[in-house]
Amino acid sequence: MTRIDDLPIRDELRGKSPYGAPQLDVPVRLNTNENPYPLPEPLVRRIAERVTEAARELNRYPDRGAVELRTELARYLTRTAGHEVTKDQVWAANGSNEILQQLLQTFAGPGRTAIGFEPSYSMHGLISRGTGTGWISGPRNDDFTIDVEAAVAAIAEQRPDVVFICSPNNPTGTAVEAGTVLALYEAAQAARADAAGALVVVDEAYGEFSHRPSLLPLIEGRPNLVVSRTMSKAFGAAGLRLGYLAADPAVVDAVQLVRLPYHLSSVTQATALAALEHTDTLLKYVEQLKTERDRLVTELRATGCQVVDSDANFVQFGLFEDAHATWQAILDHGVLVRDNGVPGWLRVTAGTPAENDAFLDAVRAVLKESKR
Amino acid sequence: MTRIDDLPIRDELRGKSPYGAPQLDVPVRLNTNENPYPLPEPLVRRIAERVTEAARELNRYPDRGAVELRTELARYLTRTAGHEVTKDQVWAANGSNEILQQLLQTFAGPGRTAIGFEPSYSMHGLISRGTGTGWISGPRNDDFTIDVEAAVAAIAEQRPDVVFICSPNNPTGTAVEAGTVLALYEAAQAARADAAGALVVVDEAYGEFSHRPSLLPLIEGRPNLVVSRTMSKAFGAAGLRLGYLAADPAVVDAVQLVRLPYHLSSVTQATALAALEHTDTLLKYVEQLKTERDRLVTELRATGCQVVDSDANFVQFGLFEDAHATWQAILDHGVLVRDNGVPGWLRVTAGTPAENDAFLDAVRAVLKESKR
Repeated sequence: MTRIDDLPIRDELRGKSPYGAPQLDVPVRLNTNENPYPLPEPLVRRIAERVTEAARELNRYPDRGAVELRTELARYLTRTAGHEVTKDQVWAANGSNEILQQLLQTFAGPGRTAIGFEPSYSMHGLISRGTGTGWISGPRNDDFTIDVEAAVAAIAEQRPDVVFICSPNNPTGTAVEAGTVLALYEAAQAARADAAGALVVVDEAYGEFSHRPSLLPLIEGRPNLVVSRTMSKAFGAAGLRLGYLAADPAVVDAVQLVRLPYHLSSVTQATALAALEHTDTLLKYVEQLKTERDRLVTELRATGCQVVDSDANFVQFGLFEDAHATWQAILDHGVLVRDNGVPGWLRVTAGTPAENDAFLDAVRAVLKESKR
Repeated sequence: MTRIDDLPIRDELRGKSPYGAPQLDVPVRLNTNENPYPLPEPLVRRIAERVTEAARELNRYPDRGAVELRTELARYLTRTAGHEVTKDQVWAANGSNEILQQLLQTFAGPGRTAIGFEPSYSMHGLISRGTGTGWISGPRNDDFTIDVEAAVAAIAEQRPDVVFICSPNNPTGTAVEAGTVLALYEAAQAARADAAGALVVVDEAYGEFSHRPSLLPLIEGRPNLVVSRTMSKAFGAAGLRLGYLAADPAVVDAVQLVRLPYHLSSVTQATALAALEHTDTLLKYVEQLKTERDRLVTELRATGCQVVDSDANFVQFGLFEDAHATWQAILDHGVLVRDNGVPGWLRVTAGTPAENDAFLDAVRAVLKESKR
C-alpha cells in the first residue's frame, strides 16, 4: 500500500495531519460554532425555488462576478454594519477560508509573511502556510486582549505583509477595539512604507454576535484594510460555505488576479441570495443566541469556572489542570465541546437553551466528580 | 481613487489581467465549451428535492469528506471508464480548477516546477503560477499531438515535479494515446528518481466526448498518476462547479493536508448527487454532441478550413492570417467563438444543431466576404 510519504509531496507537509475538529456522533454537539437553529421552513422553500431557477441554467457557467449576490451583500452590510458599501467593495467566495486564501495569494505568498495574535483562528496560520507565506505568531495579554504595545513592536520588527486581527476573536470570544485596529494598521503601514504598505485583515466571522458595532467603517480612507465576513454563523448557513469581504474596490479588483474563474457555483449564489431575503428572521435567532451566550458566561462563572468575556456565539472557559481530560469528561456526559489546544481552556458553542442546559449540567457533574 | 498598483500586491501580479473569456450578449455563444442542453426537468425537480433536504440542515457544516458524493462518483467511473475505483480513490472540489490547485499546493508550489505541452488548457499554467510553482512550457507537434521524443527530453532536462497531460486537449481537441502517457510517466519518474518521483496529472475534463476509452485504467500500480475530471461538460453542469480526481488512495489522503476544511458546500454535494442519479439521460446528450462535433469537423473541412481531429465537445479550426479579425467577423454574424491565442486558429464549441448551423452559415459568409 502506498502511504502519503511515498509520494512526492512538499517536504513541509510530511508528517502533518489535516485540519478539522473531530466529528463525533454525540447527542449535543457544541464544538464547531454552528448556529443551532435550522433555517425556517419558508426560507427552505425559497431556497428550493431559487435553486430550481438556477438549475434550469446549470449547463451554463455561473456569473463569474457574482454581481447580484455582491449587490445584496453590500446592501446587508450597509444596513447592519454602520457604513455604506457598494457591490464594487464586496467580494464573495466559498467560505471565508477561500476569501483569506485569495487575499494571501494576492498580498502574501512565497517570500512574504503574515502575522496573527495567538491564540486565534488557527486557519490564519494554516492558510498562510498553504500559500507559502511565512507565519509569525504575535502575542496577546493574559486576558486574551491584544497587547497593543507588544503587537506594534512585533509589526515594526517583523515587517509583515499581512496582519490578521480576529474580532470577536476565535477561540476566546474577545472583541477588538477600533483604536487597537487603527494602531496596528498605522504600525503596519509605517513598517512597510518602503513597499505600498501592508494589508490588514479584520476577520469578523462572528461580528453579528458582538456587543459592539462592526469595525467595517474603518475601511473608509484605508485601502489596505479588509473586513472579512461569513454567512456560516449569523445566517445559520455553515453548510452553504459563503464568505465575503468588504474593502476598497481596488482590493476587489486585485483578488480577481488570483481567484479561480467561476469559483462560486450558481447553486451557492442562488442559496445565498435566498438567505439574504430572510435576513430579519435570521438576525432574530442571533439575538436569541446572544442571550444564551450571556447566560452561559453567567452560569459557568457560578460554577467557579473562569470565563473570558465573549462577543461571539461561543465561550472560552477554564482553567483546568488538564483541559483535554476535562474535554473527555464532558464528552462522557454526551456533550461535545472543543479543545483548541489553548492550555487550561476549552470552548463551548452557544446552542439551543436545552443544549446549553445539558452542557451546564455536564460541567457541574464533571466538576463535582473531580472534587471527589 | 486607489488603483491595484497602489496596493501591496505581489510583484508578479502587477500589470496582469484576470483570466476569463469575454462574456458578450450574443444570440449564439459557442465560446466556453458549455453543454448546450439544459438539464431535463425531472432532474431539475430532483435537484430541488435534494437541495431542500440539504437546506434543512444548512446550519451544520457539510460532510467534510463528501463521502456519499465520492462513492457515487466512484460508481460512475467504475461503470463508464473501464476501471474499478472506490471512494477512497476519488476526491471532489469546486471545479477541476480547485482539484488542480490542491494538487499543485501538495506536489508543487514554491521552489518546484510543473510542465505542460502547449497550446493546452491555460489554467494549468495560471494555477501553477498562482501557487508559486515555476511553469515550463513544453512542445507539441504541428498537428498538436504531443511530440513524445521532445517531451521526454524536456522532462529529463527540466526535471519537473508535476507533468500535465490534457486529453482530449483543450483547445485543440486532440486525444492522447495511452503509450504517450506511459512514456511521459516513466520519464518523469526517472528524472525525479532522487525524490519520490513526479506527479503526472491527466486532465480528462472532456473525456466523455472522446472516441477513445478513458486513460483512467493507467492509475493501476502508478501511485503518481492522477486523472482529473469535471461534471461541467458531460453532465451539463458548468454552473455547479464540481470537479474530481481519481488516483491512488494516498493521493487523496495527501490533498487533505492542503484542502480548505469544508470546502464543498452541502448544496453543491446535493446537486451533484442528483445529477449522478440521471447519468444515463445526460450521457445521451453527450452522444448527440459527439455527432454534432463530427458534423462540425466535416462541414468546416468542406468550407476549405483546416480542422484538427477532435475528441472533445469543441473543434479547433483555421488557418487564418488574422485569427482575431476572423473571430470578430464571425461575432459580427451573431456567433461568439473563442480566440485562445493560438496563432491562426479559433475554437468553436459544439452547440445544438441549430446553433451549429448558425455558426457554419457565419463561417461560410465570412469566408465569402474575405474572398471579395
